Amino acid sequence: MNNIDIVMQDAREAFESFRLLSPSERSSFLQKLAAEIEAARETLVQTAHEETNLPLPRLNGELSRTTNQLNLFARLIEEGSWVEAAIDTADKNRTPPKPDTRKMLLPVGPVVVFGASNFPFAFSTAGGDTASALASGSSVVIKGHSAHAKTSQLVFEAMQKAISKAGIHPFTVQHVLGSGSTVGKALVQHPLTAGVGFTGSFAGGKALWELANQREQPIPVFAEMSSINPVVLLQHTLQENAAALAKTYAASICLGMGQFCTNPGLLLAVKSDALDQFLTLLGKEIEQTAPQKMLHSGIHASYTKGLSEVLAQKGIEKIAQSAQQPGNGEAFPTVAKVNASVFMQNPHFREEVFGPYSLAVVCADKAELMNVLQSLKGQLTTTIMATDADVEANADIIALQTTLAGRIILNDVPTGVEVCASMVHGGPFPSTTDGRFTSVGTTAIKRWVRPVCFQGFKDTMLPDALKNNNPLHIWRIVNNEWTKNGI
Amino acid sequence: MNNIDIVMQDAREAFESFRLLSPSERSSFLQKLAAEIEAARETLVQTAHEETNLPLPRLNGELSRTTNQLNLFARLIEEGSWVEAAIDTADKNRTPPKPDTRKMLLPVGPVVVFGASNFPFAFSTAGGDTASALASGSSVVIKGHSAHAKTSQLVFEAMQKAISKAGIHPFTVQHVLGSGSTVGKALVQHPLTAGVGFTGSFAGGKALWELANQREQPIPVFAEMSSINPVVLLQHTLQENAAALAKTYAASICLGMGQFCTNPGLLLAVKSDALDQFLTLLGKEIEQTAPQKMLHSGIHASYTKGLSEVLAQKGIEKIAQSAQQPGNGEAFPTVAKVNASVFMQNPHFREEVFGPYSLAVVCADKAELMNVLQSLKGQLTTTIMATDADVEANADIIALQTTLAGRIILNDVPTGVEVCASMVHGGPFPSTTDGRFTSVGTTAIKRWVRPVCFQGFKDTMLPDALKNNNPLHIWRIVNNEWTKNGI
Repeated sequence: MNNIDIVMQDAREAFESFRLLSPSERSSFLQKLAAEIEAARETLVQTAHEETNLPLPRLNGELSRTTNQLNLFARLIEEGSWVEAAIDTADKNRTPPKPDTRKMLLPVGPVVVFGASNFPFAFSTAGGDTASALASGSSVVIKGHSAHAKTSQLVFEAMQKAISKAGIHPFTVQHVLGSGSTVGKALVQHPLTAGVGFTGSFAGGKALWELANQREQPIPVFAEMSSINPVVLLQHTLQENAAALAKTYAASICLGMGQFCTNPGLLLAVKSDALDQFLTLLGKEIEQTAPQKMLHSGIHASYTKGLSEVLAQKGIEKIAQSAQQPGNGEAFPTVAKVNASVFMQNPHFREEVFGPYSLAVVCADKAELMNVLQSLKGQLTTTIMATDADVEANADIIALQTTLAGRIILNDVPTGVEVCASMVHGGPFPSTTDGRFTSVGTTAIKRWVRPVCFQGFKDTMLPDALKNNNPLHIWRIVNNEWTKNGI
Repeated sequence: MNNIDIVMQDAREAFESFRLLSPSERSSFLQKLAAEIEAARETLVQTAHEETNLPLPRLNGELSRTTNQLNLFARLIEEGSWVEAAIDTADKNRTPPKPDTRKMLLPVGPVVVFGASNFPFAFSTAGGDTASALASGSSVVIKGHSAHAKTSQLVFEAMQKAISKAGIHPFTVQHVLGSGSTVGKALVQHPLTAGVGFTGSFAGGKALWELANQREQPIPVFAEMSSINPVVLLQHTLQENAAALAKTYAASICLGMGQFCTNPGLLLAVKSDALDQFLTLLGKEIEQTAPQKMLHSGIHASYTKGLSEVLAQKGIEKIAQSAQQPGNGEAFPTVAKVNASVFMQNPHFREEVFGPYSLAVVCADKAELMNVLQSLKGQLTTTIMATDADVEANADIIALQTTLAGRIILNDVPTGVEVCASMVHGGPFPSTTDGRFTSVGTTAIKRWVRPVCFQGFKDTMLPDALKNNNPLHIWRIVNNEWTKNGI
């Protein structure tokens, strides 16, 4: 057996043990994970700072997000209704007799999680993919990201302490490092792997998805890939709020040096004096934004290349760049504009430039704006900046936006993704490989399960979630009625 | 534009209108569909009988199943909680302020449904795929099956009457006929198609799935393909109930001339005198089963070829065939047996032979039986025939079965799939392309939707399911609590 074979055999063995834990045992383990990561906060944040160039306050916030996320999933599985238990009791007098059938969601088995470069904590080693997979009852193999390998290893060591304190199978979580094209590929191809979580580039995510589909038994890959997050700025709000909008959007475009999946990369509006005024103010804000170091040299090189390529396209006009020349490894905050007719003819403008860059698309009229929206690929988010009068006059634009993305935002910025039950951080292809699921929020757990129906089982043989007296006190659908009552 | 272009443009236009109907309007439309099909019952059943060779009582039952299914979905969407509404209200005092986010499932758009050869009503034109897609708010394009094209056309005509009476968009449902490799392919590849439902062969389903994955924007294909539905017969029940088991299983193997996806194609047991006795009795029952006409000449030719190929494999031993030689187009009911060691070495034995055939696998001991189970691909169902003592002594076998299929059955036959909330008619690949979903039962609706999150929306802009006062009176998760209360 090679190394990956051993890792996946161990992961499978751990799964067989971990899946049998009660929800409260799993919940308690997730809380211990959060506690051990919290206990290592100072070292973790300092190490991540050195590896990623991200500022300490941001990393401290991200670490809190990570432990909050683990605790949120702990509460979710303690509450327990997420398993979608449904029960239809037997009716022996029917012709033909109706059997007793009971359904719930069960974990699929070892899950492979790829760490993300841009979130060393919240979307990496102990991030949302890992937290949701463990909550479901799956064991996890983490492929640490090379851009923050030390941080990843330290997070894993904290997790190992929690595993030891919880007294659960030592291979419930494993950690491997190495290249995506060898180690990553081998993990996705391994017959014992049952699901994959990934946050990163379109090329990387699509490659994993294709590998998974070529397996003898294909497996789901949940890759969150690329999105330019179109923002529609409507007429009255531009007239009334240009200065505030410029400040808000410059900050969102440059937040974390633009290294967010939800960065507003496209600003759409109908041409007007108010739009010109807004773009001038936005340019001034961008000029005042200082360049900062990007996550690593690869991302910096991509941004520099992507930016120069897009700015070389015919018909694009630079609005402004930071007044300060970027130093070594630093990103150059930039906004540009293009007419919608030019935008529509050049697919290059629809590609993500990952960094502090945004493109304003100036439309001749509302019809052209809707054509631009319709020409876009699937997105994680789309935003409407609008007054009440704007909303009333543009219901058709908003309806169109609903078909485009997983999250539709009114009068706010797309950056910032709340971790909660109603979040959708996912969207139609190519923003993710599977727009039916989210990688943020409690329903992220649904990626690692499948429904199983038990027919004619005796009460003692059934999982607790399906037993007559409802020992877990969860919400269930019993004979088509939602209830917490026993049978 | 070619024909398929026109069809899909019309389907898209109908979707834009149909998705805006209220749940009760959609519910009422589904009931009208059921009523119009019921009104045409006599003609439909007679036509299907002529096209498929299926007996009239079976077809009458299947038609009732079809209308019951439509009415079940009508009740589901009238009740309304299936949209998984989740609401997290704003908290402006938090740092940073917490936004108001609200999530629900929305239909994905035009769905293409392929009729199945073996169920001219329940899995075809107005069958489960169509009923669930319409219930979700998607428009539907039906590709009628050539083996019962007239029936399909007549069902569609009944549906058109319902569309007309409901006064909804005339292209909400469309019907096309033609070959799978041209018309079917063009439908799956069309950019406006958003999802595909299919019940049929592994080759057919896999081909559609691959086409869908090769699109610029891949779409989900829910193909229910092939399954041999392993049945484990345990020691004590064989000793105590051999005669009854033989009768029950002979009937299940030959039900509908074996033309069910859930046909028990594999019988697993540890060698014993009781097993020999059971197999002898099973053989006698099979001998007494008369050959009947299969659905069409293609299926008959496949069965005859598949049967002779499997019976020619080394180490297989025929137990019995029908005492009556099959006539033109009739299937030859057959049971055979093979030792587990031979079974394990020849993957041919794991392939489905679609028809009244079942293979008994005689295992040396329990360990070998578990090896056989572990060697199987994903299945729709797996069954345990067992006394209480058997269950107690074989929890490990049952646990293993849970990982193998979408439905686990105790002391019953796998044929017969109840249409209800707790049904799972789906399973790991290759039994279906996506084991996370079911094609039978109310949760089949989840195949045609994706979640959308509305952030910061005003109450009047929100879909009814997400409005503060909960006008649809549905169950929702509000700030992590299940409730029907308004906000």
